[in-house]
Amino acid sequence: METFFNPRSVAVIGASNSPFNLGSTICRALSEFSPYDGQVYAVNRKGESVHGCQGYVAVTDIPEEVDLGVIITPAKVVPAFVRQCGEKGIRHIVIESSGFSEGGQEGSAMQEEIDEAARTYGMRIMGPNCLGVLNTRNKFCCFYGIQKDNFDSFIQDNGTISYVIQSGGIVVIVLESFVADVVRANKIVSIGNKSDIDEADMLEYFNRDDSTEVIGMYLENIKDGRKFLETAKRMTKPVIAFKVGRTSEGSRAAQSHTAGMANNDLIFDNACKQGGIIRAQSISELHSLPKIFTHMPPLKGKRIAVFTNSGAFGGITADLLVEAGLEMARLSPETQEKLSRTGQIFNVANPIDLGPALSMQTFLEIFDILLSSDEVDGLLPVPSLWHPMVIDAIIELTKKCQVYKKPAAIYTPNAVHKTVAYRQQYHVPLFESPEEAVRALSVSYQYWHHMAMKEESSCRRSYEMQRHGESGLYQSMIQSA
Amino acid sequence: METFFNPRSVAVIGASNSPFNLGSTICRALSEFSPYDGQVYAVNRKGESVHGCQGYVAVTDIPEEVDLGVIITPAKVVPAFVRQCGEKGIRHIVIESSGFSEGGQEGSAMQEEIDEAARTYGMRIMGPNCLGVLNTRNKFCCFYGIQKDNFDSFIQDNGTISYVIQSGGIVVIVLESFVADVVRANKIVSIGNKSDIDEADMLEYFNRDDSTEVIGMYLENIKDGRKFLETAKRMTKPVIAFKVGRTSEGSRAAQSHTAGMANNDLIFDNACKQGGIIRAQSISELHSLPKIFTHMPPLKGKRIAVFTNSGAFGGITADLLVEAGLEMARLSPETQEKLSRTGQIFNVANPIDLGPALSMQTFLEIFDILLSSDEVDGLLPVPSLWHPMVIDAIIELTKKCQVYKKPAAIYTPNAVHKTVAYRQQYHVPLFESPEEAVRALSVSYQYWHHMAMKEESSCRRSYEMQRHGESGLYQSMIQSA
Repeated sequence: METFFNPRSVAVIGASNSPFNLGSTICRALSEFSPYDGQVYAVNRKGESVHGCQGYVAVTDIPEEVDLGVIITPAKVVPAFVRQCGEKGIRHIVIESSGFSEGGQEGSAMQEEIDEAARTYGMRIMGPNCLGVLNTRNKFCCFYGIQKDNFDSFIQDNGTISYVIQSGGIVVIVLESFVADVVRANKIVSIGNKSDIDEADMLEYFNRDDSTEVIGMYLENIKDGRKFLETAKRMTKPVIAFKVGRTSEGSRAAQSHTAGMANNDLIFDNACKQGGIIRAQSISELHSLPKIFTHMPPLKGKRIAVFTNSGAFGGITADLLVEAGLEMARLSPETQEKLSRTGQIFNVANPIDLGPALSMQTFLEIFDILLSSDEVDGLLPVPSLWHPMVIDAIIELTKKCQVYKKPAAIYTPNAVHKTVAYRQQYHVPLFESPEEAVRALSVSYQYWHHMAMKEESSCRRSYEMQRHGESGLYQSMIQSA
Repeated sequence: METFFNPRSVAVIGASNSPFNLGSTICRALSEFSPYDGQVYAVNRKGESVHGCQGYVAVTDIPEEVDLGVIITPAKVVPAFVRQCGEKGIRHIVIESSGFSEGGQEGSAMQEEIDEAARTYGMRIMGPNCLGVLNTRNKFCCFYGIQKDNFDSFIQDNGTISYVIQSGGIVVIVLESFVADVVRANKIVSIGNKSDIDEADMLEYFNRDDSTEVIGMYLENIKDGRKFLETAKRMTKPVIAFKVGRTSEGSRAAQSHTAGMANNDLIFDNACKQGGIIRAQSISELHSLPKIFTHMPPLKGKRIAVFTNSGAFGGITADLLVEAGLEMARLSPETQEKLSRTGQIFNVANPIDLGPALSMQTFLEIFDILLSSDEVDGLLPVPSLWHPMVIDAIIELTKKCQVYKKPAAIYTPNAVHKTVAYRQQYHVPLFESPEEAVRALSVSYQYWHHMAMKEESSCRRSYEMQRHGESGLYQSMIQSA
């Protein structure tokens, strides 16, 4: 699988100098936008070079060894090129062309030809009908159609969030959103019709990949429900997955897009629950939620303390927290007394209404009191940024969260364009709405709880094994059932 | 009520030159930021002038007539100033001070003193514990603490959306959001503890106000359930209302903020249903939804056609539409045939997948086919802005919607900061997420349907009255029950 993200050499099959040629945009990105240092070859009818990439008429004409074939030609010639790749000894192929099983009977027949060739030559295939692969570490990118300004802004940092995305449009939204967020993408793969490599293979790969902290998925269908479930159950990293097809209309629409049998939403939902996968409620959660995992410790209980200097948000967040299955922390008289002593607080019961005038020192004392209290598992701060001091206080809060090992999902009550600008400027993990902040706390707890239960049951199992051997384990399982 | 928004003269009681004095920020806004041309007086212990506003020790010392008193002093002296206003003949008072019924027994006693004075002198009171009033038409603003840059950006245009908002923090979010949207605020009132004037009074006023097209509300409680319901039933403009206190925790939190009995969520919800008021699901809907009413014709049926050049959004929006109670329009073979003839469309069944390459002409033809079809009630376009032509096409679409009298809720698949920037630059009514676009269609239909039913039942009633007189109406009501 590594070869898809780190090929030493690539043949872009179908890249030419014709106007509107999509393959040429891949050659351009790899040779002109990117510092990618592998060899790139172009394969086209004339054997012409494209954007400085040496051209050949056939893959088999390339004199050097080729790691990866990227095919972006009309569908009808794809099977022949796949066989050519096989002849050349290429074992990894990305097929970006569309017009296969998503396009009726003729397409399905060609798809079978490809599968046959893959078996014959022992090739692994990504696609068809996909956007390709992006690796921000080595700047390898075979997304067709990518423009220079997008490439530069998308590729700039080494992120830790990797994605399996069954659609190019979603890739763009995620990468665009990261430009104004505190996390960045690591690797992205668009798996299209997944004739060979599917979402479960990619989950497995990203789970082992050292540079991946959180995995995101956009799916239109599940290829193999049992395989997906078994893989999900082995995950040791947070996975956030959005799937279309909750309704029959959504399924039908997805089917025309990437050729899946989309009627397996229940199977997917069940796999998410059993595997501790977070089912995203909107596309935006794919990019908004990862930061609660990368930038904050996990939420290990349900009791949340809210504090705000905009009184309305006490009630708004209390409603949202309770509806999300979390709880408003009950602060003891002792804790309330400590809070009172910090300064002019309007209301020391949770939600804590800070009132408008507070010093940095008061903020820091409040953070310590709440984070150190065993009545509180996490924070939902809603501070108005009426003074530069408040943003400094927020930055200190993010550090204290690491010290006390409790998370804060911070929302500043602003128009979204202002929040995004603050987040970008100060590089703090701000959420864009109170709903998003509450959801972040909720998924943090959900994931922590799943992993804790899993560990507990695995400990219990190994304890029983040690104590009684296999049969003892069996006995104890029967008793607990 | 008009005097609150258009006073010819104002006394700011409690405005002084002491550091951190909030009243002085009102004097500053009215005399330095705003071209407001009424008289502004300051009342304070020393009788000193504040930001060029003539100062007096007592309200009764002001030689000219005063239309409006704005009181922003410590709570304990408020009752005395209210009586002074009464003596002076002021009949309209905004009390911005806090510390009344939201602040325990002592506060409640002071509140009663104020109510007593109001009865004695026949005064109308806004507040206490409120931010005040903003009228963008005459630039009158008595919000305390407002800064120059906010004032300039909030006040710039004459908008048509008026708000009743029981919290200052929410006012800021709404006004900040409008800076990057296609609609603007008209009048805003923050009603606080509403000892006298309540949400129903303001609904009534804004419904009659010629410059108000849509009404927004943020409420922490309902003062008088029956009055609210009766007023709601008389509304002839769309009302979008958010209320906290859906849970007991939310109610409790709201109570400490603005002193309401917040346990009347069911009464509120019922009044919304009966009165055709749209209950906002988040604060952001208060500013995101009005544009579907101001910039698009109403949705008069449930059948929506989706078209996109980012295939994933076919499935995503189909799920959302069905979940919102709307329908994917079924396009007849004839309509699909017409669509095919426009150019290289990937998929002519709804959701229509445009594919990446389309000309302006093709876009316009598609708009005409869909908007003129009696199989379609409204559109949900999800166009990628891959080329400047696409934004030109969207602008044409907004015009065609007016011609065909059908709405389009447009979402461009981008990161939210990009969408907001496009909306601001091109002044087109873009929604920020597919969820928001679907919600806009849904509330447009909900409001239209409510008004249509209301009109129908009123027609039926007057028809029966004409035909049979009162007793005949009664008979027909019994029969239809």
